[in-house]
Amino acid sequence: MSQAYVHGHLPREHKRLHDQAGALVDLLHADTAYPRGSTVLEAGCGVGAQTVTLARRSPEARFTSIDVSAASLAQARERAGAAGLANVEFVQADIFALPFALESFDHVFVCFVLEHLDRPAEALVQLKGLLRPGGTMTVIEGDHGSAHFHPDSPAAHAAIRCQVALQAAAGGNALVGRQVYPLMVQAGLDAVRVSPRMVYVDASRPDLVEGFTRGTFTAMIEGVREPALAAGLIEPSSFEAGVQALHRITEPDGVFCYTFFKGVGTKRPA
Amino acid sequence: MSQAYVHGHLPREHKRLHDQAGALVDLLHADTAYPRGSTVLEAGCGVGAQTVTLARRSPEARFTSIDVSAASLAQARERAGAAGLANVEFVQADIFALPFALESFDHVFVCFVLEHLDRPAEALVQLKGLLRPGGTMTVIEGDHGSAHFHPDSPAAHAAIRCQVALQAAAGGNALVGRQVYPLMVQAGLDAVRVSPRMVYVDASRPDLVEGFTRGTFTAMIEGVREPALAAGLIEPSSFEAGVQALHRITEPDGVFCYTFFKGVGTKRPA
Repeated sequence: MSQAYVHGHLPREHKRLHDQAGALVDLLHADTAYPRGSTVLEAGCGVGAQTVTLARRSPEARFTSIDVSAASLAQARERAGAAGLANVEFVQADIFALPFALESFDHVFVCFVLEHLDRPAEALVQLKGLLRPGGTMTVIEGDHGSAHFHPDSPAAHAAIRCQVALQAAAGGNALVGRQVYPLMVQAGLDAVRVSPRMVYVDASRPDLVEGFTRGTFTAMIEGVREPALAAGLIEPSSFEAGVQALHRITEPDGVFCYTFFKGVGTKRPA
Repeated sequence: MSQAYVHGHLPREHKRLHDQAGALVDLLHADTAYPRGSTVLEAGCGVGAQTVTLARRSPEARFTSIDVSAASLAQARERAGAAGLANVEFVQADIFALPFALESFDHVFVCFVLEHLDRPAEALVQLKGLLRPGGTMTVIEGDHGSAHFHPDSPAAHAAIRCQVALQAAAGGNALVGRQVYPLMVQAGLDAVRVSPRMVYVDASRPDLVEGFTRGTFTAMIEGVREPALAAGLIEPSSFEAGVQALHRITEPDGVFCYTFFKGVGTKRPA
């Protein structure tokens, strides 16, 4: 997490992450629960959007949630406090310089983090070192290349590619979701099993039209307008056309599809 | 079904459809069953790949399976006979000139058919006319634009676009899956519910690597080499590079994702 965070750390971004967490909780997290007394490292907790869900779903597990950003951690602490969580400790730390003993956690949880790293496999190796043999690692990442929609629009794809290019320029990878399996295998995890979690949105699911298509995905693309134009990635009129096309898919005949990938692997006992 | 069938009617194509049906049966059909005594129209049965699955899963329903191609129907009859099915009648007919009375079927089933039609909404209206009020229509279609993979490859996408262009030139739409919801709504069906069915393939699923990534999808793209080159859509070397890139994703670190869309709607009682 040593490079710039391409999404920024603005209040609007926090709202986006919060909406996203609300709409996607069941899809992403329904099958994650940790047993009583187990210790879980949440690596890259950001503003705590996933932390609240995680800690609520496993109230008798103890979480250590780290992030490199003090500002994000302050938000995460506030959010956890407001939720009345007593089973989370927040620690400011870099994934590549972790202040924990080897094999000191029963489980590791990594969500929306690899997309920001230029050495994702190395990060997983570091985190695996903190895991007790027999413990699990869970990795969840999105993939902007999975986005497809109706009406289809080259302009919308061009605007999306700006976000992908900016994230790549910052050392990240907005297409990392499809790589969760090979990255976990490369890091030496055992029995890796990846499952896709597609967010499918049509007019019969108005909460997702608002909360995901418009409030999460389109808002994220709109959020890179200034850096995309500043970097000369696209003409202003082309970017606007792309954003308009993304709003068009929130109309009654529109459809939007986006896929997250969730992988779970085990650290082989010695 | 009045235009050319872009995949052709060759033995290799039949093998492809057969492999595809085998690998995808549960994903696509596990939640489809028709009650005892109900009558079901399967529109566009082709060589019967889905017919056998359908009729076996609903042994006490009676199926009428139509196709415009006499050659395909002959194969379908042979296949149904080999499977010992006694609840299927095959009829040669065009979806736009159906030899059945209005409201004469309890259910309609349409799988991998709209992708070949230049007037898919009109076809659904015709089929809805044959449905008794309160009956269901089920529509299943793939979407080549949903394909994404690791390693990513512009050459592979270019080869895939050849198939999409040829299907469009023949009056079809290889990206129709994402449109199942608006098409069914446009046809006047009620309570339409669409669910995505993603085929996710990595090295932990060797049957799908062989049966789907290589045996179905890549084989389909390889199958359009001659028409794609004849139409001047791509240079031979570029097409070969795309096919090689698709084979590359069947290696141990490769990942392939493809989504089918399944919609179910009801004909509103008068």
